[in-house]
Amino acid sequence: MSGVGVGSVRPAALVDGEPATSIDVLDRGLHFGDGLFETIACPRGAPRLLELHLARLLEGCARLKIPFTDGAALRAEIAALSAGGAATLLKVIVDRGSATARGYGARGDERPRRIVLRQAWPQERAEWRAEGVAVRIAALALGENPALAGLKHLNRLEQVLARMEEADSQALEALLFSSSGRLISGTMSNVFLVRDNRLYTPRLDRCGVAGVMRRALMSEAERAQIPVSEAVLGRADLDAAEEIFLTNARIGIWPVRTLEGRTLRVGALTRRLQGLMRPLLEG
Amino acid sequence: MSGVGVGSVRPAALVDGEPATSIDVLDRGLHFGDGLFETIACPRGAPRLLELHLARLLEGCARLKIPFTDGAALRAEIAALSAGGAATLLKVIVDRGSATARGYGARGDERPRRIVLRQAWPQERAEWRAEGVAVRIAALALGENPALAGLKHLNRLEQVLARMEEADSQALEALLFSSSGRLISGTMSNVFLVRDNRLYTPRLDRCGVAGVMRRALMSEAERAQIPVSEAVLGRADLDAAEEIFLTNARIGIWPVRTLEGRTLRVGALTRRLQGLMRPLLEG
Repeated sequence: MSGVGVGSVRPAALVDGEPATSIDVLDRGLHFGDGLFETIACPRGAPRLLELHLARLLEGCARLKIPFTDGAALRAEIAALSAGGAATLLKVIVDRGSATARGYGARGDERPRRIVLRQAWPQERAEWRAEGVAVRIAALALGENPALAGLKHLNRLEQVLARMEEADSQALEALLFSSSGRLISGTMSNVFLVRDNRLYTPRLDRCGVAGVMRRALMSEAERAQIPVSEAVLGRADLDAAEEIFLTNARIGIWPVRTLEGRTLRVGALTRRLQGLMRPLLEG
Repeated sequence: MSGVGVGSVRPAALVDGEPATSIDVLDRGLHFGDGLFETIACPRGAPRLLELHLARLLEGCARLKIPFTDGAALRAEIAALSAGGAATLLKVIVDRGSATARGYGARGDERPRRIVLRQAWPQERAEWRAEGVAVRIAALALGENPALAGLKHLNRLEQVLARMEEADSQALEALLFSSSGRLISGTMSNVFLVRDNRLYTPRLDRCGVAGVMRRALMSEAERAQIPVSEAVLGRADLDAAEEIFLTNARIGIWPVRTLEGRTLRVGALTRRLQGLMRPLLEG
């Protein structure tokens, strides 16, 4: 079996705190995507933005009514797998656990399952952060469901299909619109637009994942008195943007250098935000 | 650990043809819901509508670009687990297999995984088929994504959440509308409406699962020269329906007896279709 990550080193995994390479075949994460995940960057060993990750995870459990109460155990497992100082990514899954009855409905007697996987830090080029990346627009449009909006849940077929479009493309990311034409996000990142020295990022009340780096950046912008709005944005807003950048927990901030043939500059506000975020990203 | 089904007998499972109780923790079905499933009724041992199930599964693999080529092995596994003559349900999952790289995108070198689970036939009351069932309307609205519409894929959080609404309800099923207000299906069934001696069932080009029993019933209706249309249907069509019934591979045809307080009769066309389908359902 092939491994995951750079050099195909198989990642270490803990399932409910025990070293494991497998999970129960009745797991509801497998059967229904009935769970949530976090990808926690540990660029120098320590988990970055850990509190934001855990808060989002707990909020997701509450919204999906997953009775997860083992936050302390999860913290210990994250600490154990991130120890050592090497740059790693931790993927954390919390799902509703094994099915206790047939069918979609949860009976309420399920025991949530914790999975923590250690993955190698992916290879990155410094120029992606410095000079920006090429981005395309996905053909796939995201379905809209407020009940799932904002959550980093395990139903990710839309992202899989969007990534599989145009495998030959030079683009490192694809921007997604929703079925009603709203700009939402990248497949693995959130998106910010700059216009008239204001920051805009899509409102995520119909679909999309409310990223922890998006949250951290919005807080940092507010602290620096840079106006920032969560807004309903469309194609015209994207076209009118003077600067565009992407965020996620691992990449930090990637300026968009080209978008479907259009060339953008890495603008002043993007540079300023990269500077403001540097203590967090490199500290 | 609790088992599944009547009497909490843990089901037999084959993973890639081998008896197993677990799957790889890197399985993309778990991480992304990146796969498909079938629930095959074996009321007297033999799998019912097997060719329709396998055809839908293969079509789904083609649409998701899952390079599944082990149909012959899967047939043999279904035969092995259904042998014996007892009433069982087989749940078949085919997913993209273990991740060979980090992230949503598939590299193309994944090896699809087959999972076949044998589950006990659920307890049913004869009156559900004879006299009908109580049905409610779900609060949750389904997201619309033509790229996933019709497929029985593993992204089923919407169905989980819809089933979890009103746990106290006497309703055996909940009807779902989509985000644009279209009637789509039940959480685990397709829906048919009767009006002026014509059959209508929701068009499933934006969301919903195109059930095998829905397909079989439409074929049977056409053979009997009963007009049947796949149509864009809304709340007004539901309210105007003279008869309503539900179908799935296990239940066959359940008339709707009550819908959110409204009482319906089990009408003549529903009875006629139950009669036409009897050789298939009880043969």
